[in-house]
This record gives sequence, structure tokens and C-alpha cells, in this order.
Amino acid sequence: MNLSDAIIKYPWLNELLHELSPEMKDSIIIRSYAPQDIIMEHCEKHYYTYILLEGVCSSSQTTQNGTQFTLRKATIGDVIGFMNVYPDTMNFEASISARTKVVAALLPKPLMQSCFGTYHDFSVNMSKRVVNRLQSLLTLVSECNNSPSYIGLVIYLEYNYLFYLKSYPENFEGPVKIRESRQNISNFLGVNVRSIQRFLAKMKEEQLISISSHSIYINKVQYEALQKIHISWLPE
Amino acid sequence: MNLSDAIIKYPWLNELLHELSPEMKDSIIIRSYAPQDIIMEHCEKHYYTYILLEGVCSSSQTTQNGTQFTLRKATIGDVIGFMNVYPDTMNFEASISARTKVVAALLPKPLMQSCFGTYHDFSVNMSKRVVNRLQSLLTLVSECNNSPSYIGLVIYLEYNYLFYLKSYPENFEGPVKIRESRQNISNFLGVNVRSIQRFLAKMKEEQLISISSHSIYINKVQYEALQKIHISWLPE
Repeated sequence: MNLSDAIIKYPWLNELLHELSPEMKDSIIIRSYAPQDIIMEHCEKHYYTYILLEGVCSSSQTTQNGTQFTLRKATIGDVIGFMNVYPDTMNFEASISARTKVVAALLPKPLMQSCFGTYHDFSVNMSKRVVNRLQSLLTLVSECNNSPSYIGLVIYLEYNYLFYLKSYPENFEGPVKIRESRQNISNFLGVNVRSIQRFLAKMKEEQLISISSHSIYINKVQYEALQKIHISWLPE
Repeated sequence: MNLSDAIIKYPWLNELLHELSPEMKDSIIIRSYAPQDIIMEHCEKHYYTYILLEGVCSSSQTTQNGTQFTLRKATIGDVIGFMNVYPDTMNFEASISARTKVVAALLPKPLMQSCFGTYHDFSVNMSKRVVNRLQSLLTLVSECNNSPSYIGLVIYLEYNYLFYLKSYPENFEGPVKIRESRQNISNFLGVNVRSIQRFLAKMKEEQLISISSHSIYINKVQYEALQKIHISWLPE
């Protein structure tokens, strides 16, 4: 697939790229990744900025002392590898790999550096997608950290329902697969895996989630029930 | 103080604003705030984007269910209220107040919207400061969440030493006041206040921190000792 085909298939892409000249557009590559493929080895050294067109990818980050964990995820419409805009990039030691099949538009570094700050819509739309993703993740982390563990899990599942829903057809109301291992959830919430297992079993019993072949599924009705629990919970 | 005086006092400000016309610069206001002053009531409705020139401010955010907590802080060189660049701003319900005396340059919304994406250095430098702040906060939260509580506190104190150090003269090696209440630290780390008290007492005993009039102080030597603990800690 080339960029013209991609713009036909993903019309929203045009809003980001309409100011670019045909030559500039020619330097953009459309690439597909299979699940588990590594998209970026180390962000700070990478040549491309990615606009995600399909699928989900996630970062595997290593703390200074060697623990591996997943914090950042991105899906359709998200922009990753944006640090290429900044000549003296910051220290961000993460590898990004595909969690599902992924399709992305790859923008070379020189293109990013010449277009960002020059083309208004490009600059606004690209940075907005990055800032939005970081802000909403920060809000999620802080809401989870400031709630009792069970409510933290409810909030985390709500977020992930909306996140994974993006890969389903518009107006989809059926079960959405939450591609998060128990260990992922445990690391994210800072709650031990056994508690997570217990909470999930309770949620399944109350039909707030479904579990099939060890995977969590949430449909629209269940999502709304989770929202109610979240909102009705009041701190002491 | 007007902008010209501010650029003399804070020369780095010029790197952000040098492309702007004199008329544009005239619309920028320099304003001082006393400790506890509210800088922004609700980010999303606010008219100004702020470049912090002096002091520290912090957000007080309310979760959907009413808990108040502080997550975001900003200090010298940080840009806040950046969402003004995006016409359809996102839902970010936070109030920002001054934690110390604060001096800031205030950029009106129309100026932000016309300059961002038009002036290259302005766009790159402003967005970089925002993305940097969000990224480093995310890294902090995730490192803390993925470490045992005591190491989480070590990491949190390291971060805050560097954060508050920015308000001290260059090459300052003396004690830096960490303006964080026990409750703040407890909320941020998701660890109860009594554990935080116990950890801090242990750290004081080991001379990793100093405590004076209930406030935490860290000097350069102590900071380096904290770093050693952090790095030498290896997960099982």
C-alpha cells in the first residue's frame, strides 16, 4: 500500500498531511507488522515517526535497575516516535512492539524536522495526538493510584475498553477483547497478581466482564455498568 | 516587569520567543504570584499559556468521584496551559496554584494559536517543554509503581531533588527543600502515610535526608547516596 491508498482507506490521515507537497508525501512509507514484531528498538535512535493506522502496539520499558514493564500503549490515530522532532532528544529507553497486526505510516526524521513548526495543521494535529495520549495516560495512572485497588481496576478496565474498541467497527457494541495479561494489570496498578485474579473473578461473577480462554472481554452494557461503579464510588 | 526586562533577566526566554514580532511580544504579560495564589482555575477554559520563570506551581486535580490529588508540578522553564493551542481542547479538570512565589510569562490564546505551527523554533521549543514534562512524569510514576515502596520513595525523592534544585543558584550543593507533604508523597506513591513516615525516619537515621521543622531537605551528597541505593537495587 502507498500513501495515496492509505489516505483513501483512512480519510482522517488527510487532515494531518494535506499541507505536505507531493515530494514530501512520497517519502512517507506505509508498513505492516505482524503481532510480536518489534517496531522500534530504542525510540531515541529511531529514524521514523509513526502514525498508527491499524492495530495496537505497546512499549516495553526497562527501569534503571532492570525491571521490564509495559506502560505506554498506542492504537489507531496515535502518533509515536515524536521525539524525532527534537534534535537533542531525551533519554527514553523503550522498545515498541506490535501487540496485534499493526499498520502504520512512517515519517522520516528529516520530513518531521522540516514540517513541524512550518505547517500549521500538521504541527497542531501531530502534537495534539502525542500530548493527548500522554495526558490521558497520566490521568489514568493518577486516578488508579488514588483509588482503592478494586476501583483502580474498574477504571483501568474502562480505559482499556475504549482503547481496544478503536480496533472494532464503528458503533460496535459486542464483546471487546482486552489484550492485557494479569501480570500487565498487576504491574500497572501496583497490585499483586493474586488480588487482580480475585477481583476479576468477582467481576465475572457479577457479569461486569466475561472471561473466555483466559482473556477478558467487555461489551457495551458491561462498560456502562463499570462506569456506574466508578462514579458511584465516593471516598470516605 | 515587562517582557524586555524578563528576557534580560532570563536569557533562555529569547530562544523561545525570538521569532515573534514586536507587536506579538507586546501582548505577552509578565506576572507574579504569591504562594497559594491560584494561577489557573480550570485549564481548559483559560486564556493564557504560561512559561514559568521562577518558582513552583502544582495542580490540584479532582477524580471523577471527588478525591483531590496533586500529580503535576511545574517549575522554571516549564510550559503549562499549552492546551490553548488546540481549538477543541480536551477534558482536563485541574486547578493550578503557586506553591512558592511564582513569576511567569503569560501568552494569550490568539498569540499561541497563530504562532504555534507557524514559527519553527517557537513550536519546537514550546511543545518540547510540554512533552518533556509529561514524559518524565510518566517515567517517574511508572518507575515508582514498578518498584518496592521503599525504592519508590527513593526514586521519588531523587526526582524532587532535581525538580526543586532548579530554584537554587547554579552549582548549588547545599540542602534543597523538598516541598512535599507526607500526604502528597503518600498519594503519589499509593503507599499509606504511616509507611512513608517510617521510611523517612529510616532515611533520616541513615543520613540520606535531613528533616528540619518537619520539612525534608536533601543536599548533593545525599542525592548521590540515594542514586546509589536506587541503582544497586536489583529486582528478584
